[in-house]
Formats: sequence, structure tokens, C-alpha cells
Amino acid sequence: MAAFEDLIHARRDVRHFLCDPLDEAEVDRLLALAHSAPSVGLSQPWRFVRIATPALREALAAHVDEQVARAGKIYEGQEDRLYRSLKLHGLREAPALFAVYCDEGTETGHRLGAMTMPEARRYSCVMAIHTLWLAARTRGIGMGWVSILDPATVDAMLEVPPSWRCLGLLCLGYPTSEEATPELERRGWEHRTDWHSTVVTR
Amino acid sequence: MAAFEDLIHARRDVRHFLCDPLDEAEVDRLLALAHSAPSVGLSQPWRFVRIATPALREALAAHVDEQVARAGKIYEGQEDRLYRSLKLHGLREAPALFAVYCDEGTETGHRLGAMTMPEARRYSCVMAIHTLWLAARTRGIGMGWVSILDPATVDAMLEVPPSWRCLGLLCLGYPTSEEATPELERRGWEHRTDWHSTVVTR
Repeated sequence: MAAFEDLIHARRDVRHFLCDPLDEAEVDRLLALAHSAPSVGLSQPWRFVRIATPALREALAAHVDEQVARAGKIYEGQEDRLYRSLKLHGLREAPALFAVYCDEGTETGHRLGAMTMPEARRYSCVMAIHTLWLAARTRGIGMGWVSILDPATVDAMLEVPPSWRCLGLLCLGYPTSEEATPELERRGWEHRTDWHSTVVTR
Repeated sequence: MAAFEDLIHARRDVRHFLCDPLDEAEVDRLLALAHSAPSVGLSQPWRFVRIATPALREALAAHVDEQVARAGKIYEGQEDRLYRSLKLHGLREAPALFAVYCDEGTETGHRLGAMTMPEARRYSCVMAIHTLWLAARTRGIGMGWVSILDPATVDAMLEVPPSWRCLGLLCLGYPTSEEATPELERRGWEHRTDWHSTVVTR
């Protein structure tokens, strides 16, 4: 109970990685655990694409850099300066890199729970990602989830089946530092709100 | 590390609840921990609606029963008989009941990461749900996530702001039994696949 609370509070979105490689047996163990995440109708629709080619990694990093610049056009003045100074991904440095997909066409689970809210399958994939994130943290491994990208472009780069939908890129590796506070809060981008503000009663 | 793996393997989607009430301070602690989930741009877009009115609870349960019957029209023969025999929610019995929403219009986080993939905000809410789920399990409390519903109907019942998007209903309470195997697998609806089948390399 207490250890789980500590884990939740210690987890960060990591963008600064050491170049030390990860033990491949440990990576396998993380993926196997992610596979025990909840899934709608027991559909287990998550698909992990391991990026193993240096050229593909660089193409993805260049794409995300371009999308970061494009998304930043909405900011002005001080906010623009702060945005430009943020490091938003570690795609070039992280020793292990994955793209995560949801197979929207899977027949596993016999469509139970996915008729009324088809997005429930993608939500299952998010829980697999979150399981991987927390499991990595229990082993001192950091993870960063990159969502500033154009899914169609990434799909084409990775040549995935048409029924697969992109949820983002995951960078995994040992972090350069362990931080108690989210980087976006330390840098003054946003601060955390009080939990009471998120609950209403009906 | 080992304790977290045990937690992941012990978590179940619970539909059979004891009527024992939950300690409200404990429920608050779970919500506070869920609020430490990762969120895109530190937007913390999750909104929890506590269902406190018996009439509203019954209306939601009746709506879900109707949607379960409607969604089941795709099954035939043996699969139809099995589907009809499944208990898919504990909305009437669970001592605590929540609807979970994503505030798609929040300005918290200054839209960082939500320009290219606006669904990243909903994914953040899924991680808050998953945090709540796991935290509850560390305290022996079971949770069930109900997604067989029509979001527009539920939105109207709960009178939520137009920018809020429904992710489902959560039932919380002490389970009638602790099970090592998912109910859908025990009942023969689906079995779990091997994790290797979900990883490809590029």
C-alpha cells in the first residue's frame, strides 16, 4: 500500500536519459508485465513496435522536432520562450524506443465492451503503457511518452497494418536524475492542482 | 519490484461486491492518489462524478442493462447463451459509484501535447482510473470499469458541462472473492494470449 503510493509519487515523464544500455531480459520482463494490464473483453489489443533501426529512430526524432515547432506556434512572448526551452523528448538518446499501437480490428475478446465505446480498446492500451511505466520505475528505469506527432506520418514510417492506431512513442532508459517534482512544474510551465477540484457529486 | 508484479497479477475487473461500506477517508485517499497520475502537459483533465443519489444509481444500472442487451444482439447460439449468463457490472451493489470524465476544454497545461493528439487528454484520464484501480487493490478494494453504455445518455443524466467526455462508470467495493484468473477467462469467454505475439520490430 505505502510502497505503491511511493511508486506513484516517484514516477516522472523522463526526457533526459543516460546512454547506458538496458538489459534485454529486463525489457522483456517489462513487456510481459504490461501484457497483464486490464483490457476490455480481455481483448489485449496493445501492439508494441520496437524501433531497432538507427535511421528510423532519427526519422522519428526529426518528425517530432518538426511537430513540436509547429504545435508551438500558438504561444507568444514569455510563454513562447519557455516552450522553446523545454526538452520534450529523448528520442535520440533513450536506449530503448517503442511505438505503441491499438489493433482496432482485433477479434480477441469477441468485441465485448467495444460495441458501445470502441475507444475502450485504446484505453486498454493506455493501461498497458501505464503498467510498463510503473514497472520500469520499480527497476530504476525512466520512461517518457511522446505524443507530439502526426499519427499518419508515423504509421507510414513504421508500415503498420491499417487497423492499427498510434498512441505515441515511448522512450525507455536510465534517467540522468531522479526528481520529486514534474519537469513542467520545475520549469514553471504548469503547477499541480488540488484533487478536490476534480470531484463533484450528483 | 516483486510487490508491484504481484499487484498487477492480482488486479481483477470486479463485478461481484459485498455490501460492506467503504471508509470515506479511504475513498478520498484513493482519489488523491489517482490525481498523481501522469497527464499530458500536466493538464490533470480527469473529473470524477460521485453518484450519491439512489435514483440516479438505479437509472444508470437500468441504462447499462439495456445497452448490454442491445450490444449482445451480435452473438448467436452458444456464444449468445454464454454472453447472457455473464455478469457485466455491479452497479446496483457496489458501495461506491463514480462516473469518470475528461475535461476536453481545460486550459490547464496550456494545451501542451494536446494539439497534435487531443486524445492524449483522455489517455491521461485512463491513467488516473488505472491508478485508482491499483491503489484500491492494495487496500483489498475491488473495482469494475463499465463501458457498455451510451455516453450521451449518461452525460444527460449527470448534467455534466458540454466539454466533458465520458470514459465510463467505476464500481468500487470489497469483492465477494479474490480470483487469480480473469472472470472472462474462467467463464470461457476468452483466454489470455502470449505477450510475444504483441511485439514486432522495425
